[in-house]
Amino acid sequence: MTESPNRQGAVIGVDIGGTKVAVGLVDPRGRILRQLRRPMAANSGPEAALEAVTAAISSLSSQSESSSAPPRGIGICAPGPLDPVTGMVINPPNLPCWRNFPLASRVADVYRVPVKLDNDANAAALAETRWGAARGYRYVFYATVGTGIGTGIVFDGRIYHGRTGAAGEGGHVSIDYNGPVCSCGKKGCIEVLAAGPAIGARARAKLSEDRSRHSTILDLAKGNIDAVTSELVGQAHAAGDPLAREILQETVGLLSAWLGNIVDLLDPNVVVMGGGVAAMLQPFFGQIKDRLPSWCVNPRVSEIPLLIAHYGADAGIAGGAALCSDVLA
Amino acid sequence: MTESPNRQGAVIGVDIGGTKVAVGLVDPRGRILRQLRRPMAANSGPEAALEAVTAAISSLSSQSESSSAPPRGIGICAPGPLDPVTGMVINPPNLPCWRNFPLASRVADVYRVPVKLDNDANAAALAETRWGAARGYRYVFYATVGTGIGTGIVFDGRIYHGRTGAAGEGGHVSIDYNGPVCSCGKKGCIEVLAAGPAIGARARAKLSEDRSRHSTILDLAKGNIDAVTSELVGQAHAAGDPLAREILQETVGLLSAWLGNIVDLLDPNVVVMGGGVAAMLQPFFGQIKDRLPSWCVNPRVSEIPLLIAHYGADAGIAGGAALCSDVLA
Repeated sequence: MTESPNRQGAVIGVDIGGTKVAVGLVDPRGRILRQLRRPMAANSGPEAALEAVTAAISSLSSQSESSSAPPRGIGICAPGPLDPVTGMVINPPNLPCWRNFPLASRVADVYRVPVKLDNDANAAALAETRWGAARGYRYVFYATVGTGIGTGIVFDGRIYHGRTGAAGEGGHVSIDYNGPVCSCGKKGCIEVLAAGPAIGARARAKLSEDRSRHSTILDLAKGNIDAVTSELVGQAHAAGDPLAREILQETVGLLSAWLGNIVDLLDPNVVVMGGGVAAMLQPFFGQIKDRLPSWCVNPRVSEIPLLIAHYGADAGIAGGAALCSDVLA
Repeated sequence: MTESPNRQGAVIGVDIGGTKVAVGLVDPRGRILRQLRRPMAANSGPEAALEAVTAAISSLSSQSESSSAPPRGIGICAPGPLDPVTGMVINPPNLPCWRNFPLASRVADVYRVPVKLDNDANAAALAETRWGAARGYRYVFYATVGTGIGTGIVFDGRIYHGRTGAAGEGGHVSIDYNGPVCSCGKKGCIEVLAAGPAIGARARAKLSEDRSRHSTILDLAKGNIDAVTSELVGQAHAAGDPLAREILQETVGLLSAWLGNIVDLLDPNVVVMGGGVAAMLQPFFGQIKDRLPSWCVNPRVSEIPLLIAHYGADAGIAGGAALCSDVLA
């Protein structure tokens, strides 16, 4: 018999992105009871953007009202940079609406409950630790690999923030100081080498190099090299395409070198990977494990589990809720 | 008025290397009251090697006996790999005498006081945090740059060990996954790129490339390129040699890229560097600080102090003592 959801202690998780706000009611066991999405007003003024967020929260709350107690808190995750201590959004490129905006306190003013704010990857790392794949592990390294690479570090059940909340930016660890320039300005970050856009670019380069080579990737792109994306590489790999396999294996090699650095610094109890590219690479997790010993001085790296994230597209909602549960615990 | 040394609460710090054992009596404020060195029997059997260590400790204790209480504990640092939890030496390349040897408990059996064991860099990081340059800082990253690069992470006054004690191996963070092979087997570790031997090799390569170029480095090596070492590069730089400056600036560039990775992961409150090469590079610390922002996404990296270690050649003795003070605190 599965337990019935516990609406009594539910909290609201809010996931703010450049185009949408997703909100969900999450019970103390990390189950998302109800959720909805609204457009985000990322390019409007700060107050209009705040209203887009509160409209989504209020809409979810009104749906829930009849059957449950009011939520005990609200946790928000958003793209950084932001300050998790003060709850200020600093200057995220994806959210031009807010510059040094006290988002947490403004939302708290509206709903009169505790409100916590953190970046997406940190929040998702905490959700995985509390309720997901990393549950029960002491030192957790989490990475979401998609259009970018975001990472979060959780020690003893708490996000490791470092001095100013800027810790855990593993996506911008460089493994090639002479390498291609990342959107952040550094050279050779794992993000510029192995995230979705890099996989797409690698595929386009290989297809351009040898136009006589047949590949399902090109079939899926209807013969248009410029239309090739990492998603199509993933689909082609699932259909058994050798070129797609080659591209994903190269990506696996890069991620192994990077994870080796992480393990040598942090010696975590578990590594969890989420996001669209991680899902695509899941068939290669065994290969990453096999390669890690050659990228680590840690003599016991093979004992560290490499797991796929429990939360998929709902990582933001669960992450927001985890931030908040942390406060209430 | 300076306080007089406090022999009452003194502990013994032991620094075991491949060729020597250094032992010192260290007071609760981190002052080394007395020290001595003995040859290490690294290539003999495990019991003879243990005797080399206890002979040094006993010799120090007998010198101290008349004037002080017996030491309250013994802290030992040694090259890794070792297990700080069980106090076992696992299989250090520099100490073939010991394979899975329970060093801490064997020494405790002799002296009947608490004995702690950790690797050199971790121990030195703790000594800097407790008594040295990193005193008062919450999240500390320490690196000793010499013939190798060892690092230690201290959070909230305690060494961060990770899952198995293998954390903090920052010297083997790779910044060039296609780079030269390190002694550890990984490619492009900062150790193989920027430690003393790399500086010597870089100088020899540049001198071989352009034999018409005059350099004080070559003068110091009496014209013999093969005799060029990092020490001579340092001496030549101190004498104003432009080639030496060029070589050290390249090293600074590599260390900046590496420290950028560390800061983006850990966002420490302070970075402390010790060891012979760090001392040689101290005039360039301002340049490292200037370069770090281009190697970090951390928007406030410029606020993080980069400091030279307080303990020089005595880092091992102080480190051993710090391990032990930790137990007694």
